[in-house]
Amino acid sequence: MPQDTPSSVNNNPPLEPIRKRATFPRSLTELVTNQLVPGDMAKSQALHTNMGVDYVVVFRFKPDEKAKATAGFEKLVHKLSSVGLATEVRNGEEHSVLVFVKVASDEHMHAEIYRSRVKDWIHGVRSSEPARDIRASLEQDPLTDAERLRIIYQLITNYEEEGGAGIRPKSREWEYVESVFALHDHTFNKHWIKEWATKYRVTIDDLDDIRNRFGEKVAYYFAFENTYFTFLIPPTIFGILAYIVLGSFSPIYAAVQCLWSVVFVEWWKHQERDLALRWGVRGVSNIESKRHDFRATKQVEDPATGETQLVFPWSERLKRQLLQIPFAFVAALVLGSLICLCFAIEIFIGEVYNGPGKSVLTFTPTVILTTCLPLLTGAMSNLAKRLNDYENYETDSQYDRQHTGKLFVLDFITSYMGIMLTAFVYVPFGSVLVPYLDVFSKVLVKDESQLNTAAEKGFTINPDRLRKQVIYFAVTASIVNFAMEVIVPYLKRQSLIKFKEMTAKRTNSGLQPSANVEDPPEEKEFLDRVRSEAGLPAYDVYTDLREMIIQFGYLSLFSVVWPLVPASYLVNNWFELRADAVKICIEMQRPTPWRADTIGPWLDALSFLTWLGSITVAALTYMFSNDGIGPDGRPHDIKAWGILLSIFFSEHLYLFVHHIVANAISRIDSPGRQKERKDRYLTRQKLVQDSLEKLPKMLQTDDGNVKPITRATLEEDARQGSLKSSTPIEQFWSRQKGWRESAKMGQLYIEKAVDEEEAAKGKKEL
Amino acid sequence: MPQDTPSSVNNNPPLEPIRKRATFPRSLTELVTNQLVPGDMAKSQALHTNMGVDYVVVFRFKPDEKAKATAGFEKLVHKLSSVGLATEVRNGEEHSVLVFVKVASDEHMHAEIYRSRVKDWIHGVRSSEPARDIRASLEQDPLTDAERLRIIYQLITNYEEEGGAGIRPKSREWEYVESVFALHDHTFNKHWIKEWATKYRVTIDDLDDIRNRFGEKVAYYFAFENTYFTFLIPPTIFGILAYIVLGSFSPIYAAVQCLWSVVFVEWWKHQERDLALRWGVRGVSNIESKRHDFRATKQVEDPATGETQLVFPWSERLKRQLLQIPFAFVAALVLGSLICLCFAIEIFIGEVYNGPGKSVLTFTPTVILTTCLPLLTGAMSNLAKRLNDYENYETDSQYDRQHTGKLFVLDFITSYMGIMLTAFVYVPFGSVLVPYLDVFSKVLVKDESQLNTAAEKGFTINPDRLRKQVIYFAVTASIVNFAMEVIVPYLKRQSLIKFKEMTAKRTNSGLQPSANVEDPPEEKEFLDRVRSEAGLPAYDVYTDLREMIIQFGYLSLFSVVWPLVPASYLVNNWFELRADAVKICIEMQRPTPWRADTIGPWLDALSFLTWLGSITVAALTYMFSNDGIGPDGRPHDIKAWGILLSIFFSEHLYLFVHHIVANAISRIDSPGRQKERKDRYLTRQKLVQDSLEKLPKMLQTDDGNVKPITRATLEEDARQGSLKSSTPIEQFWSRQKGWRESAKMGQLYIEKAVDEEEAAKGKKEL
Repeated sequence: MPQDTPSSVNNNPPLEPIRKRATFPRSLTELVTNQLVPGDMAKSQALHTNMGVDYVVVFRFKPDEKAKATAGFEKLVHKLSSVGLATEVRNGEEHSVLVFVKVASDEHMHAEIYRSRVKDWIHGVRSSEPARDIRASLEQDPLTDAERLRIIYQLITNYEEEGGAGIRPKSREWEYVESVFALHDHTFNKHWIKEWATKYRVTIDDLDDIRNRFGEKVAYYFAFENTYFTFLIPPTIFGILAYIVLGSFSPIYAAVQCLWSVVFVEWWKHQERDLALRWGVRGVSNIESKRHDFRATKQVEDPATGETQLVFPWSERLKRQLLQIPFAFVAALVLGSLICLCFAIEIFIGEVYNGPGKSVLTFTPTVILTTCLPLLTGAMSNLAKRLNDYENYETDSQYDRQHTGKLFVLDFITSYMGIMLTAFVYVPFGSVLVPYLDVFSKVLVKDESQLNTAAEKGFTINPDRLRKQVIYFAVTASIVNFAMEVIVPYLKRQSLIKFKEMTAKRTNSGLQPSANVEDPPEEKEFLDRVRSEAGLPAYDVYTDLREMIIQFGYLSLFSVVWPLVPASYLVNNWFELRADAVKICIEMQRPTPWRADTIGPWLDALSFLTWLGSITVAALTYMFSNDGIGPDGRPHDIKAWGILLSIFFSEHLYLFVHHIVANAISRIDSPGRQKERKDRYLTRQKLVQDSLEKLPKMLQTDDGNVKPITRATLEEDARQGSLKSSTPIEQFWSRQKGWRESAKMGQLYIEKAVDEEEAAKGKKEL
Repeated sequence: MPQDTPSSVNNNPPLEPIRKRATFPRSLTELVTNQLVPGDMAKSQALHTNMGVDYVVVFRFKPDEKAKATAGFEKLVHKLSSVGLATEVRNGEEHSVLVFVKVASDEHMHAEIYRSRVKDWIHGVRSSEPARDIRASLEQDPLTDAERLRIIYQLITNYEEEGGAGIRPKSREWEYVESVFALHDHTFNKHWIKEWATKYRVTIDDLDDIRNRFGEKVAYYFAFENTYFTFLIPPTIFGILAYIVLGSFSPIYAAVQCLWSVVFVEWWKHQERDLALRWGVRGVSNIESKRHDFRATKQVEDPATGETQLVFPWSERLKRQLLQIPFAFVAALVLGSLICLCFAIEIFIGEVYNGPGKSVLTFTPTVILTTCLPLLTGAMSNLAKRLNDYENYETDSQYDRQHTGKLFVLDFITSYMGIMLTAFVYVPFGSVLVPYLDVFSKVLVKDESQLNTAAEKGFTINPDRLRKQVIYFAVTASIVNFAMEVIVPYLKRQSLIKFKEMTAKRTNSGLQPSANVEDPPEEKEFLDRVRSEAGLPAYDVYTDLREMIIQFGYLSLFSVVWPLVPASYLVNNWFELRADAVKICIEMQRPTPWRADTIGPWLDALSFLTWLGSITVAALTYMFSNDGIGPDGRPHDIKAWGILLSIFFSEHLYLFVHHIVANAISRIDSPGRQKERKDRYLTRQKLVQDSLEKLPKMLQTDDGNVKPITRATLEEDARQGSLKSSTPIEQFWSRQKGWRESAKMGQLYIEKAVDEEEAAKGKKEL
């Protein structure tokens, strides 16, 4: 093996061709697909084969803990082998070893699949028992990449009592196991990116593909994003029309947009359910896996089974949960006061202060915000996590749900508070509050002339402030965000590669040879690619979802200020959808294909934002409605009862409409629902048949319609019985023998009654 | 048989002793228990035996349709016999024949029980399959009266395709079948009434007894009523204290009462679920039975199964449901305007008019209300029913739910509109609106002096009006209601008996002999009792529930006006609970023991009333809060923004508190829930075992932990394979043989890295 090949060249093959070519790629598509498959395809098939590897375990040790590292490594490989996984070991970068893992035998894999499917069936995720013959089962429901990878991942990470190897990356027991990740399927990725880059609409088949590769959790994100994108089209058109015809703060636009939000959220709920049925994952969130960090405080003997159970009393948890209220207050106070402070400074400098250095001082709030806000948000997130840990949830899903809820509180404050302040504090109370900004004058201003005294005394609010802020969040922030997500990581990686190249050159003396010096030549490119993927961060779908939810919030809360918000987001999301695809394919490790049947806690956030929208939109529309004064956005004389009445009216209208829309949409039939009904029906039929077969033979003849013979026998029996003894009851039941006699008797009574009636009539007539 | 025995004497044996005795019963208990069991117990055992009769079918024919009647009767008896029921026929009163029905054989009954339990299991009501041996199953879950009667009732009334006889009383096909009812168990009834009359608290065991006899639907009513009664104790105590210390319209009382409402409704939801688990009926509302009146308009071929299904498109139904909105408007308009009219007349006559006949005219509104309101309500109820029919629901439960919803709209208007008008129209706008009552002056008044002109000009509202109205609904109306429910039916029956006695005397000439002339002497008393029960009305639990819900509405909406409302209702409900027991036992036919797992649509009504309460209470408290002016109930200067702000604040506080309370209560563990968890766990374990047994033998050895030998064999296989051919993949996987070699290799990499690190360090130090 040539020891002196500069390691940097082969270190990251997917990126290599780009660096080699001096010309800039002609299009984004080209740039991206180039990254996926090197230009010189004939040279290497490294990207087209994963060598049958299912997972790669990255074992990163500290060089000064050699004994511990070797012992840990042996344990790792042994554990993997003990659950039926074959291993191959290769050298990794920077004190790491790569362990390649695949399932040792097909039979073993089949048994695991069967076990997993039985579990699904028992928890009601599958409506029917999987076929007993595994091959038949696989023919019926073919194994997708995602299912296979999920099962193997669980085999590696599940605790031993659940039949896994218990290898949890970065846990206390496995501190050297840095990550467990699957290799990208670059052929599929390339195809995916190419297709999406060239078509306008994402179809359900595309989503199926994503689901089959990356699992339902990721597929749900793309499904949501795509539904949201499609739904943005009507408000975009209406928004543009409204912008031209109605202007800002139009009650008509407000009503349409609120209705749209309601329909969108409810429709998504409907579609979410439908997708769950389509993908056969309805109810997976009910398969609870116990949290490992859960700490039981009490041993309780189950009164029924006598087993001792380890529990955490609900009352204790409730007490701990009450801490959420002070937490929300503290978060609002801490983050809120920072935002308020910056807001006040901004107004003071922008609209009151007139002294020297104004152009520099203008940046003060931005500087404070960009330095302090992430710091404080970080601290609060940390607090949220600790609070959540303290609440000690029993299952992972509960934990995640509660954690997301807490983070949403923080997001809500940092995202919307600025605009809220402008709309509901600055505008109505600006003229009252601004004089109090004198506080700053004492610090900054020595000379009265430096103050825009006219402004301070007869202060008039800046009517364009609100609109500018909304436009910032709708356009500027979106672009910045996009850049941060796509371009910055790209540049970061490029410079990292450059940096590595340089250090490699410096250490070229052979002191620290690169990892690939010992690679067999035919594996070199493959291993380089794996090392490159090992260095990528893990993908977290929740971050992407959160971004979308917050965007939806701007739309539902404030788009009445500037009706072009939907248009801006429509454009943004077309790119976002594709950028996210690129991100997953290039900038992230292949995500573990988790299942999901919902976007989870974010659904609550969506509903909440829609509701809040009905309040803010009403208030904004009322405050800024300019009945004939002209579209200058200046609030007319605001009356408290007016605002409150519009809020009251709008909110209850919202609740009413929401109720109707939710009801109507929930009744819409769909292929998924039909399938579910049919499955349930067939399963029930089968169960009924199975059970009724168990009825003793004797009774089976008595099946609903008693055969005349049986009946006659029974009656004969009854008569026989009544002849032998004669309690009053037996006598009562023996007066008529068989239904014919009963019928006869009844007819006699009827005839008699009729006769008597006629006789009576006759007498009367006489 | 003595033909001339006066029929009247024996006609209604349960009531006979009372009529015989001249003295009035010494207590209500005595009166009631006397009615149940005649004083002269030795004389007759008629009340203590039901002769083994399960059901009585009343066949009432028209004397002028003799042929049709006899044919119909024969069909009836034949049908009953065809589903395995034995029949006996006796003469009934007034052109009726009584058909006594019992199950022909125990085996047949057992098969039906098994079938019913299997159905429950399949629909998820039972968590485990019933034992295959029916006797074992019956030992495990003993058969209650209620289950037996329900199964037989279904056998009689279910459609033939469902295995029943299809005899639906009063349906088009069975127009002569008046009713199908079970006989009262008078021994139990007597015991029940006696026990409840002498104890203060109803326990869960008492509810179990009711459930075992009358089924879950009735038991749920008593459970609700009892929970409500128990829950009334804290607000009663607090209300009395508030009445003494705080007076009316106290914000503290308002807050406490709102919180109480929320906790009560949520607790009831919790308890409802717990009872469902206790009684093993959780999920029965999901066992949908198709409505017979459902009319499909479309044949749809199921895309999956290819079966043709008869459906009614959801979109069509939605269109029809939109008619509910105009319906609600019309109802509000029609009933509302009547109530408004009466209200206006009342105020005019009471407070403005001063002319002749005032004392008589005062009754005008009462007369209008008592004549027109029932008429209009009847018409609207009729309209509601027709609208509901038009909406064409597929299942009975949907139909009932929607129907209840519509009736609740009517109830809401007729019950609460009067007080609402006083509180939110008369009080704030009285002085503005009253002058418009001049309309009436033109009709009534010729002389200006007849008007209380002072009042009309400087009209001051009557501050006590609201309180009086609330007291009326809390006390007077309750007493009147109680009287209407218990005493009036009693008197009605007594006079009916008297009337029959008289007509019997008149027709004593033998023209129309009473029904019991041909009774065998030993059955005489029993048959008389049955005839008497046949003449009773059927019990409808929904009427009783509705009464409670409306009562709860007064409490949650208006009790802040007069804090003694809970006290009044507490007393009322103690009696109500017992009066309802008496009503079921004496004044009604034994109810068919239907199952239920909820009080159904009324739950929505409860939640709605609690929500609305948070609005009305805030508004009332604000409007009538007398900050230092003195407790005269006169509204101070009302500000629109003040009302709106209190409503806004209160409603959102309600929503927040409701969220927390609902969350907290839903987490409370309970015996029922523990049982459910355990059952589910055991069922799952059994299913897993069953399924894993099906795994092919070969794979079973491979169970999670692979045996070393198997593993070694597999590896050997892999090596053999790689020796034969050598694709890059096979080569890749054959570099290390077994996990020990992998571990070794990893250790080598680790050691090498550590050595290099140290070497590098050494170099640097040099």
